[in-house]
Amino acid sequence: VQMDPHNNEGRTKFKAFPYVSAPHRNLMVDLVSTVENRLDSQLLPCTLPPDVQYYQNQSGTGSATLHIRSGHKPSQIDFILGSWIHCELPTGGALNITSLSAYLNPSTDAPNFLFELIQSSPTSLILILDLPPRKDLVLSPDYLRTFYEDTQLDKHRQTLEKIPEVRPYVSSSLYIRSLVSPTAITVRIETEASGQGRMEEVIKGHIDPIAKEVLEIWLDECACGEREVGETERGYLEKRDGLVKSRTIEIDLGSSLPRLFGPEVAERVLGSVREFFTA
Amino acid sequence: VQMDPHNNEGRTKFKAFPYVSAPHRNLMVDLVSTVENRLDSQLLPCTLPPDVQYYQNQSGTGSATLHIRSGHKPSQIDFILGSWIHCELPTGGALNITSLSAYLNPSTDAPNFLFELIQSSPTSLILILDLPPRKDLVLSPDYLRTFYEDTQLDKHRQTLEKIPEVRPYVSSSLYIRSLVSPTAITVRIETEASGQGRMEEVIKGHIDPIAKEVLEIWLDECACGEREVGETERGYLEKRDGLVKSRTIEIDLGSSLPRLFGPEVAERVLGSVREFFTA
Repeated sequence: VQMDPHNNEGRTKFKAFPYVSAPHRNLMVDLVSTVENRLDSQLLPCTLPPDVQYYQNQSGTGSATLHIRSGHKPSQIDFILGSWIHCELPTGGALNITSLSAYLNPSTDAPNFLFELIQSSPTSLILILDLPPRKDLVLSPDYLRTFYEDTQLDKHRQTLEKIPEVRPYVSSSLYIRSLVSPTAITVRIETEASGQGRMEEVIKGHIDPIAKEVLEIWLDECACGEREVGETERGYLEKRDGLVKSRTIEIDLGSSLPRLFGPEVAERVLGSVREFFTA
Repeated sequence: VQMDPHNNEGRTKFKAFPYVSAPHRNLMVDLVSTVENRLDSQLLPCTLPPDVQYYQNQSGTGSATLHIRSGHKPSQIDFILGSWIHCELPTGGALNITSLSAYLNPSTDAPNFLFELIQSSPTSLILILDLPPRKDLVLSPDYLRTFYEDTQLDKHRQTLEKIPEVRPYVSSSLYIRSLVSPTAITVRIETEASGQGRMEEVIKGHIDPIAKEVLEIWLDECACGEREVGETERGYLEKRDGLVKSRTIEIDLGSSLPRLFGPEVAERVLGSVREFFTA
C-alpha cells in the first residue's frame, strides 16, 4: 500500500466525485492532481473540521465535500479550494456542482484560477473557466497584455463558442460578472434530450483539453511566475483580494447552501470557509 | 427663420445622418437632440476645424462627420462626441457607423455614456450601448449598486437578448471588453436576407426605446447627479480617464480610419481628436 501523507476520509471522499459522469470525474481528478503534484511542497494539508469536509442535508438527498489547502510561506499560494455538491431535485433530476479554484496572496499580483461545472440535468451544463484578474485591467494595459493577450487565452473561448450546443451564460450577479476577465469562458451547454452521450463527448473532447491548457497557463505564468510587488501595490492587493473573497463566498455559497442544505449546515460550512477567506 | 447659435455646415451635416434608414436616423437625431437640449447651457460649440468636422476619402467612396462639444466650467461634462462614418465597400454594400458618446470630468466619478450602431449590410447590425464605469467595480460595490443594480440597467440587456435575431457580439479588443460594464449591451443583429424591413422594425421597436431609456438614466443619475470626489480620488480619475480616452481613440479610430480614409486624412482627424482627449 502506497503511503499518502494526507490520506484522510475527507480527502478520499472529495477526490471520488461519485455523482458525475466518467469524463467529468476524470477531468476533475486530473485537474486536482495536476495542481497538487505541481504545488505539493507549497501546500499544507486540509485542516477543515470533518463535518465541513463532508456534509449532508437532513433528508439525506444532498451531500457535499469541501477541501481547502493553504499555502505556507514563502509560497505565493493563498489557498486552493476544491468541492463538489450533489443534490437530488424535487423534479426528479439532480444538481451536481464541481469546482476547483486557486487564490494567490499579495506577494504577487498575478491572476487567480477559477473552474466550475454546474450540471442541473444530464443535458444541461454550465461551464465557468477563467483566470480572474487581481487589478483593474483598464488601468493596467501591461498586465492585460502579459496575462491575457500574450497567453492567447481568448482562443479557447473562441473554440468553444463554435460548438453548436454552446450558448452564452450570464451570471445573475453583476458583481460576479465584474470579477471575471475579458477572456472568461462562461457558457451553457444544452444537448438534445436524448443526448447524454453527446454531453460526455463535449466534456471529454472540448472542455477537458481546454481546462487543462488554461490550468497549465495559470501554473506556469501565475502560480509559479515571479512578479515585483511594491509596498503600496501590496496594500491595494490585500484590500481588493479581501473584498473579492468575502463577497464571492456570500454571493456563491451564501445564497445556495441554505437553500440546498438548510440554515444550520450552511452556517457551519460558511463559518469555516469565512475563517479562511478573511485570514 | 429660427436662429440657431451653432448653425454651421459641420453641425448640419452631422445631424443629417444621410446614409442610414429612417428609424436609425430618427433615433440618432433624437438622442443627440435630447443630450443637447438637456445639457445645452453647459456645452461649448464645436470648435473642430471644418475639414475634421466633415471629411472624405480620395476616391469619394467614403465620407464622415465628427462633432465634439466640450463642457465649460463648472459643468461635470468633459465633452460629448457624435459622429457618423459612411464607406462604400468593395463588395458592393456600404459600412455605416453612427455613434454618440459622452465623457464626464473628474469632478464626478459617475459613468460615461456610449452608444454605437455599426451596420455593415442591410441585414447585419452591431449595437453597443453602455454606461462604462470610471472605477474598478470589484473594489466599489456601492458604485456598482448605485449605477447598475438600482437603475435596473440589466433588464434592457435581458429584453434584447430575447429577440430571436440577436446574437452576442464580442469585441476583438480585450481592452474594449475590459472597459464596459457588466450590464453592457454588445450584440449583433442578423436578419434574413429578405429582411430589411425587419431590421428597421428591430431598430424602431426595440433599440430606439432602450437607447432612450439608458440615455435618460445617464442624464439623470450621471451627468446631472452630484457625487463627492476627494483629492486622491480625483487624481485617480484623472489618470484612469486619460488612459481610457487615449487607448479608446487608438483602438477604435486609430485602426479603422487609415483603412477607410487613407493615412493622410486619418492623421488629420486623429490629431484633432487627440488634442481633445488629452487636454
